[in-house]
Amino acid sequence: MYFTYEQPEFDRKDPAEIRRVIKEAYLVGKDAAREGKVADYIPELAKADGNDFGICVKTLDGEAIEFGDVEKRFSIQSISKVINLAVSLKFMGFQETFAHVRMEPTGDSFNSILKLDTVDDHPFNPMINAGAIQVMSVLSNVFEFEELLEFARNFCMDNDIELNEKVYRSESETGDRNRAITYLLKSKGVLQGDPDKTLDMYFRMCSLNVNARSLANMGLILANGGQNPYNGKHIIHPAYIRVIKSLMYTCGLYDESGEYGVLVGIPSKSGVGGGIIGAVDNLYGIGTYGPALNQKGNSVGGISAMQHMSHLLHLNVFY
Amino acid sequence: MYFTYEQPEFDRKDPAEIRRVIKEAYLVGKDAAREGKVADYIPELAKADGNDFGICVKTLDGEAIEFGDVEKRFSIQSISKVINLAVSLKFMGFQETFAHVRMEPTGDSFNSILKLDTVDDHPFNPMINAGAIQVMSVLSNVFEFEELLEFARNFCMDNDIELNEKVYRSESETGDRNRAITYLLKSKGVLQGDPDKTLDMYFRMCSLNVNARSLANMGLILANGGQNPYNGKHIIHPAYIRVIKSLMYTCGLYDESGEYGVLVGIPSKSGVGGGIIGAVDNLYGIGTYGPALNQKGNSVGGISAMQHMSHLLHLNVFY
Amino acid sequence: MYFTYEQPEFDRKDPAEIRRVIKEAYLVGKDAAREGKVADYIPELAKADGNDFGICVKTLDGEAIEFGDVEKRFSIQSISKVINLAVSLKFMGFQETFAHVRMEPTGDSFNSILKLDTVDDHPFNPMINAGAIQVMSVLSNVFEFEELLEFARNFCMDNDIELNEKVYRSESETGDRNRAITYLLKSKGVLQGDPDKTLDMYFRMCSLNVNARSLANMGLILANGGQNPYNGKHIIHPAYIRVIKSLMYTCGLYDESGEYGVLVGIPSKSGVGGGIIGAVDNLYGIGTYGPALNQKGNSVGGISAMQHMSHLLHLNVFY
Amino acid sequence: MYFTYEQPEFDRKDPAEIRRVIKEAYLVGKDAAREGKVADYIPELAKADGNDFGICVKTLDGEAIEFGDVEKRFSIQSISKVINLAVSLKFMGFQETFAHVRMEPTGDSFNSILKLDTVDDHPFNPMINAGAIQVMSVLSNVFEFEELLEFARNFCMDNDIELNEKVYRSESETGDRNRAITYLLKSKGVLQGDPDKTLDMYFRMCSLNVNARSLANMGLILANGGQNPYNGKHIIHPAYIRVIKSLMYTCGLYDESGEYGVLVGIPSKSGVGGGIIGAVDNLYGIGTYGPALNQKGNSVGGISAMQHMSHLLHLNVFY
Repeated sequence: MYFTYEQPEFDRKDPAEIRRVIKEAYLVGKDAAREGKVADYIPELAKADGNDFGICVKTLDGEAIEFGDVEKRFSIQSISKVINLAVSLKFMGFQETFAHVRMEPTGDSFNSILKLDTVDDHPFNPMINAGAIQVMSVLSNVFEFEELLEFARNFCMDNDIELNEKVYRSESETGDRNRAITYLLKSKGVLQGDPDKTLDMYFRMCSLNVNARSLANMGLILANGGQNPYNGKHIIHPAYIRVIKSLMYTCGLYDESGEYGVLVGIPSKSGVGGGIIGAVDNLYGIGTYGPALNQKGNSVGGISAMQHMSHLLHLNVFY
Repeated sequence: MYFTYEQPEFDRKDPAEIRRVIKEAYLVGKDAAREGKVADYIPELAKADGNDFGICVKTLDGEAIEFGDVEKRFSIQSISKVINLAVSLKFMGFQETFAHVRMEPTGDSFNSILKLDTVDDHPFNPMINAGAIQVMSVLSNVFEFEELLEFARNFCMDNDIELNEKVYRSESETGDRNRAITYLLKSKGVLQGDPDKTLDMYFRMCSLNVNARSLANMGLILANGGQNPYNGKHIIHPAYIRVIKSLMYTCGLYDESGEYGVLVGIPSKSGVGGGIIGAVDNLYGIGTYGPALNQKGNSVGGISAMQHMSHLLHLNVFY
Repeated sequence: MYFTYEQPEFDRKDPAEIRRVIKEAYLVGKDAAREGKVADYIPELAKADGNDFGICVKTLDGEAIEFGDVEKRFSIQSISKVINLAVSLKFMGFQETFAHVRMEPTGDSFNSILKLDTVDDHPFNPMINAGAIQVMSVLSNVFEFEELLEFARNFCMDNDIELNEKVYRSESETGDRNRAITYLLKSKGVLQGDPDKTLDMYFRMCSLNVNARSLANMGLILANGGQNPYNGKHIIHPAYIRVIKSLMYTCGLYDESGEYGVLVGIPSKSGVGGGIIGAVDNLYGIGTYGPALNQKGNSVGGISAMQHMSHLLHLNVFY
Repeated sequence: MYFTYEQPEFDRKDPAEIRRVIKEAYLVGKDAAREGKVADYIPELAKADGNDFGICVKTLDGEAIEFGDVEKRFSIQSISKVINLAVSLKFMGFQETFAHVRMEPTGDSFNSILKLDTVDDHPFNPMINAGAIQVMSVLSNVFEFEELLEFARNFCMDNDIELNEKVYRSESETGDRNRAITYLLKSKGVLQGDPDKTLDMYFRMCSLNVNARSLANMGLILANGGQNPYNGKHIIHPAYIRVIKSLMYTCGLYDESGEYGVLVGIPSKSGVGGGIIGAVDNLYGIGTYGPALNQKGNSVGGISAMQHMSHLLHLNVFY
């Protein structure tokens, strides 16, 4: 990421200029991706092509501005944490959700158990593995995977989302750290559901096959107060959408969230599958796909493209 | 803090309604303050009256909506971290500033040294003590205290800001943990200035005598892209203002920042002197004073009042 | 524990005097036990009677000086870590054993995972849960439980040692923290065996039904260079016995090991079942049973009795 | 360090054989030193010659078996922690001493502040910097440096021990981490004396100019129950000597203490100046000097020589 306070002058409402900037962002992201490295901690993820890059920006009036690999499917990974949180808020409510997980950034890596074992028995937030597993332990008592899948399809306006069986099996077979986290939560008496079912549903939700377009749609619903702007359906209450976006802002990019907030300033969530979702209030939903990651586990291309758009189109929440 | 998604209907542009809500916020804060406790780690702070409460909201067109103890002076404490950061950004630039301190929330308490000694030699962000001391170590090589004081006066549109000598001496005499932090930074080779001068200036800046009105003014400049709306003077470049507000959002209320973001959603900074400053983009600067603190070191009344206004006037950045 | 440098004068070789001191130690331990609390983290352990206390001292010439509840069976718990380590050293050798676990005290509690997740992927020593599970993961590839049981019987000169099925099931059902540790070790790639088999054998070994006399016998073999003094059989090589005793000295009483070393000075190992085993070179094997524990998880009566004997009979290794 | 259970047969009471083994140990240590690296965190220490090596073994009947650089002076560094503890025990007593510092190994490095800031306000033991500074804060209220120097001279039977002014200044100038530790202790309200005087005396005691022979003498007094065997003077009460040796055993070689206990088994204390002191009860005092250190900060040659002697002469406390 970089910093500049130069602001080129152009008409930021002109659709042609907007399209030009998004195309530039695609090229910037595509180029930056060369510095990243595909995730290898799950064998299936290691098969991704680090050169892939795609960006999709959806507008409230139905336009899709997209470039590159926007239809290519990849596993949603940590972005499913946003879906899990949304389901929990929608069906369990705020009090019940945050009776089981906190709302604080950790400053630690996504799979850290340090704070869990030294500061608080409850995970710090729902955007880290421990927190998302905890949320899932609540959901697993009430929902079947198919119900969450259906919710995800609505949230992403994408009925083609399926479980990627290979990724799921790979997650499941190599998910020992998540298993350790789950049993640690259970040993502390905070886990709410059966460890095996919790983990199974957690792994399944991480293995949903999305693409940049699905993410842009989901971002659009977040940007539009929880309502699908195309069919008018209310997916999530706006008060919950604000909660979700605030947590995306403070905790959405693992231990790079603070810097991303400063330099990009769009509430976003990343996944090690290569996706990043962004929500620009009342304007855009953004999805990027670039499986080449930086050391924090975030898509190099995605971050670069997001920053380019934020900077030139003034998408930072503090504009 | 509480959560609700009920939204009473009224005209949020009507000045009378706005005034009514702010008055309610004052009463809510005044009432809530009874649950807090005045800081006692510095003898001088312990002398404050926990029942004091005041709120000042400044608008771009020069109006001040204020209730309670808005002229009462108190020490700015950690809110000076915002000033120090602003000076560093303005005069040292972004690269130089963040060569010495990072931008990540810690999840630890304000005076923690844990991450400093285990994760990274550079402090996690300029809103915790270690980070603010580090920023001051850079400034102390270039500026005298009087220059920073002058900057603070301009930032707060308040020429009556003075050093509170008693607080300063109290800070200085009991500041052993900050001294430990300073020498730890020095031992790691990251401190940029002389430890004694750095600490002295850090303590002095914490001991500035402000009031709720000063803070509201400072908040207004943050809300107005760094420009004083009354005399048109540019205090800080808008690009830096965005950086500051983002860090206020992710790190401004110590280890309660995440929850405050979710439930209030206004970039803010608190101090153990009892102040909270908030910036609502293009609308308001807010200053509250309530020395009764919660366990995280944040003003109980201030948080309650901020939440009331945010909720009823839709001040959350994600509205 | 207490400290004194008064040394009453009496003939420390006189069997009657020795017997008198051991009886006193029994009374001291019995009395002290009232301050402790029976372990409750495993339901079966909570059923023990906190008033129980027994002490058995075995000598090289076959004498047993014993008082109180010396035949009462209880689960060996962490003292099995000494047996596991002994088996590993005997059959795997020193290099192979310590390729998988380190030899350092941790200063943390017995079931801590802090250092495992921050300092070193290998557990710090075989006397904490993580280390003992790691040792067992090696053994589980080579041995069946019955073989370890047989070894334990020889080591304790006690063919009546059986698996306590109730404790085993209780351990197994509530052993989520140990399960978390096991999966953490697996996720780091250091666990050597199947997690389920490792844990099952670990739980089984913790559930062996011993009594104070069994422990005294085991202590005697440790005190006698690994040889059973009664039948002349060599159980463990003397070089390994020294390794074991050194680790008992530095790590045998969890995070109370340092203080116990200073104030008792007998290489010992405690278990939350209430047992403590001690080895006084070329003199005694000592076993105590007192299920009332202190906050560190060590038998209050056992520690008091051990200290009384050490002090009056000069059993401290640094005499 | 290495492990073997082969035991060559020879007459371990034969003075010629003993001398042969000690000479071998010297050669082993001298050779091993090539793998180490002279300390460089204090400029003055970096001037030492990594090839230097010397060993001195003193016996109760006054013999000195010595090879190599046994008269070369070097700074005592952390071995002074033993002297400080001895003074505190002798003049303050056990209760007062351990009211201010604990007795547990930490598993952390010698200058760690982790546990101090997360587990307990009192330092874990007097053999780490925090603990030794804490002990000195008590002593600094009662003693002048010259008195401690006099005690050190008696303890080492060496009237030529002086303050090495250059090392002292170097320590003092670069001792920011120790300064941080001192202020941290003060901020927690546990430090007993003035920070500056405490640190000054701490640095002075670290800067005493000893040689291998001084250390051997000191080791002999530790081995002889606190009595100087040559002039019959009682320096320290035997009950305190046991306390000191136990802490040397569990904490004497920083975070290598456990392994050293297993593989050497002689209560010892190392210093980054290159010295190691060892006490073999009722037999020997040992001093080694070899400034080439391993990564834990312990003398490579010293450890190798100690292990050689321990192994061949059966000096392990658990023989």
